[in-house]
Amino acid sequence: MNRWLLPEDIADVLPAEARKVESLRRAVLDLYQSYGYELVAPPILEFLDSLLTGTGSDLNLQTFKLVDQLSGRTLGLRADMTPQVARIDAHLLNRAGVTRLCYAGSVAHARTPVGSSAREELQLGAEIYGCSTWEADLEAITLLLKTLSVAGLEKVYIDLSHAGILAGILDGQNLNKETVEALYGLLQSKDRSRLTQWATCLPTNIAKALITLTELNGPCAEVLANAKKDLPKHAAIDQALLDLERLVSAAAKLSGNLELSIDLADLRGYQYHSGVMFAAYVDQLPQPIARGGRYDHVGQAFGRPRPATGFSLDLLTLASLSPLSIRKLAIIAPWTEDVELSKTIATLRGQGEVVIQVPAGTTLEAAEYECDRELVKQGNSWEVKKK
Amino acid sequence: MNRWLLPEDIADVLPAEARKVESLRRAVLDLYQSYGYELVAPPILEFLDSLLTGTGSDLNLQTFKLVDQLSGRTLGLRADMTPQVARIDAHLLNRAGVTRLCYAGSVAHARTPVGSSAREELQLGAEIYGCSTWEADLEAITLLLKTLSVAGLEKVYIDLSHAGILAGILDGQNLNKETVEALYGLLQSKDRSRLTQWATCLPTNIAKALITLTELNGPCAEVLANAKKDLPKHAAIDQALLDLERLVSAAAKLSGNLELSIDLADLRGYQYHSGVMFAAYVDQLPQPIARGGRYDHVGQAFGRPRPATGFSLDLLTLASLSPLSIRKLAIIAPWTEDVELSKTIATLRGQGEVVIQVPAGTTLEAAEYECDRELVKQGNSWEVKKK
Repeated sequence: MNRWLLPEDIADVLPAEARKVESLRRAVLDLYQSYGYELVAPPILEFLDSLLTGTGSDLNLQTFKLVDQLSGRTLGLRADMTPQVARIDAHLLNRAGVTRLCYAGSVAHARTPVGSSAREELQLGAEIYGCSTWEADLEAITLLLKTLSVAGLEKVYIDLSHAGILAGILDGQNLNKETVEALYGLLQSKDRSRLTQWATCLPTNIAKALITLTELNGPCAEVLANAKKDLPKHAAIDQALLDLERLVSAAAKLSGNLELSIDLADLRGYQYHSGVMFAAYVDQLPQPIARGGRYDHVGQAFGRPRPATGFSLDLLTLASLSPLSIRKLAIIAPWTEDVELSKTIATLRGQGEVVIQVPAGTTLEAAEYECDRELVKQGNSWEVKKK
Repeated sequence: MNRWLLPEDIADVLPAEARKVESLRRAVLDLYQSYGYELVAPPILEFLDSLLTGTGSDLNLQTFKLVDQLSGRTLGLRADMTPQVARIDAHLLNRAGVTRLCYAGSVAHARTPVGSSAREELQLGAEIYGCSTWEADLEAITLLLKTLSVAGLEKVYIDLSHAGILAGILDGQNLNKETVEALYGLLQSKDRSRLTQWATCLPTNIAKALITLTELNGPCAEVLANAKKDLPKHAAIDQALLDLERLVSAAAKLSGNLELSIDLADLRGYQYHSGVMFAAYVDQLPQPIARGGRYDHVGQAFGRPRPATGFSLDLLTLASLSPLSIRKLAIIAPWTEDVELSKTIATLRGQGEVVIQVPAGTTLEAAEYECDRELVKQGNSWEVKKK
């Protein structure tokens, strides 16, 4: 019913839900502010080239295209704000030190993402630029857990991976982008027979390492021990395993309700990541509620290399999963001209009350408010009475 | 500089400004909530037909079009949220009584609006459905003044008009939509010689009334007296003048800083209005900061006639004109592993402080925060010191 006249997988957010989204939006942005994240708001439209800078082909397919009447060039309606925020860090703020940025805005997908039923999201995220060490990744994971906690979601599963491992395995092979994207799919599905077949053109030790990757998933300590033993020696791989080890050790202390695991073959859906990557899951949702990680090369694609890490999630999904209730109490008042009534109403509103005037003889239906009191005339004054 | 790689008249909102916008957004939505307005969030994309329902040709030209891969139909990127909110009232909420709705969201214009330098706006508005009398128009004007006051804009000029007057004058003439739109332009420019020429095909008394309209602007009392004397007798005109008279009398009491005037020939830019219309001006901006009025027939175009009135404005423009300063104080802390430091920081953040961790030896540039204190180690504990 709430899709009346609307395109497939596009919906209105109606009163009670919209207020819940707004309430979470504020609480989460306040949380990010307390950590020193600065708010930015990139435009919903950009030249397509800018929007896709440093990203993968998935994002291109996901992006609505339209023509700019003023320039004749192709614009994109953003499907992801992260590259926009990287552009702001790289070229507008142009700072040397650590910069923390956060954002909340509408994004649209030309095709419905797998497992989702919404083509429009309210993307919310936080990003740290200028810090290349694992502490920044830890801060991102910390903030993500606190974000979910603000929404009342305490039991969280985080799956870690690292782009440096595959990069280390494939070092010197000069595979093109399409080939690597096909490989992501094979690794993700852990289809060893097809992967073996696909890897026949590669040196045996590399093919073997790829097969090994598909087995490296599960509890952190076990996966890390096996990875050190079974993966080839390479500086990038050693560094990746060290990053993961430190992060696992620090993140384990963040929350008793956090379950950490590692899946070194999980590289899909991370369109532009370069280091530690993570996906957060909660009960009730088979897809990740949030994704994040390092994407140092996006700034580089904008002409200014900057270490970068962060995460983002859809606030509409978060609100729909949040057990919090935000119904607000309200006072009903008649809608008549009466100087005393107006004064009383103004005072109540000044005290933070919601006062809703309704014409005499009508009733109020309001999904957002619970009208538990009313203003009643007592002699010359107006008083609040329980309904 | 902040248009780097961006299309003409499209810009990023950078930290200090973005926080100011966010702060105003919250204050204004809280104001609307205290009056019982319920928040809604329609999608940024809809079928073009739905987006343009009940509106004029200006909105069509202003709307970016794109193709929906799922349906093959033409979608529009919204240029105005008011018709979307009317659709929600008419078909989704489907309530019989008075409904108050408010919204804040991005809209985009295919062409830069006259007098503006921005094709993207953050449209903010409040609408009342189900009340056909002047009290609803007064509430809309009251809320508009309070909105401007929240932003620190106290001196406001409001120009009133009424769609019923021209409707009364042209009653029975059966002019088509294009002809009436051309007439709006002539009336707006008050070009009497061209108007006289244009009106030669109309009966003399009607042509005379149109010329009279161009003279009916200025202080309210004077214009209303002249209008009663000089305009033809017609039920719609009498009702319009009565509406305006009541509204002027009530609105005059709202604020000592409000300057009210009437311009009965000002009908342009009101794409779908049907009754009282108003434009609010502030110093520093030649264009109206906000527009509003009655648009009873939009709900009707959606198949369910509902009285409707309200207003909207661009929050980005409001923030740029607002004299308020929102810089937030912050505490700098080192970014090191230290259990005592982490505890101290968590406590400070819990108290509402912003604590920003920076790596040793680096400085922080943050447009949004003023770092006036720092955390310094004193023996085994960490203490806040003035910088």
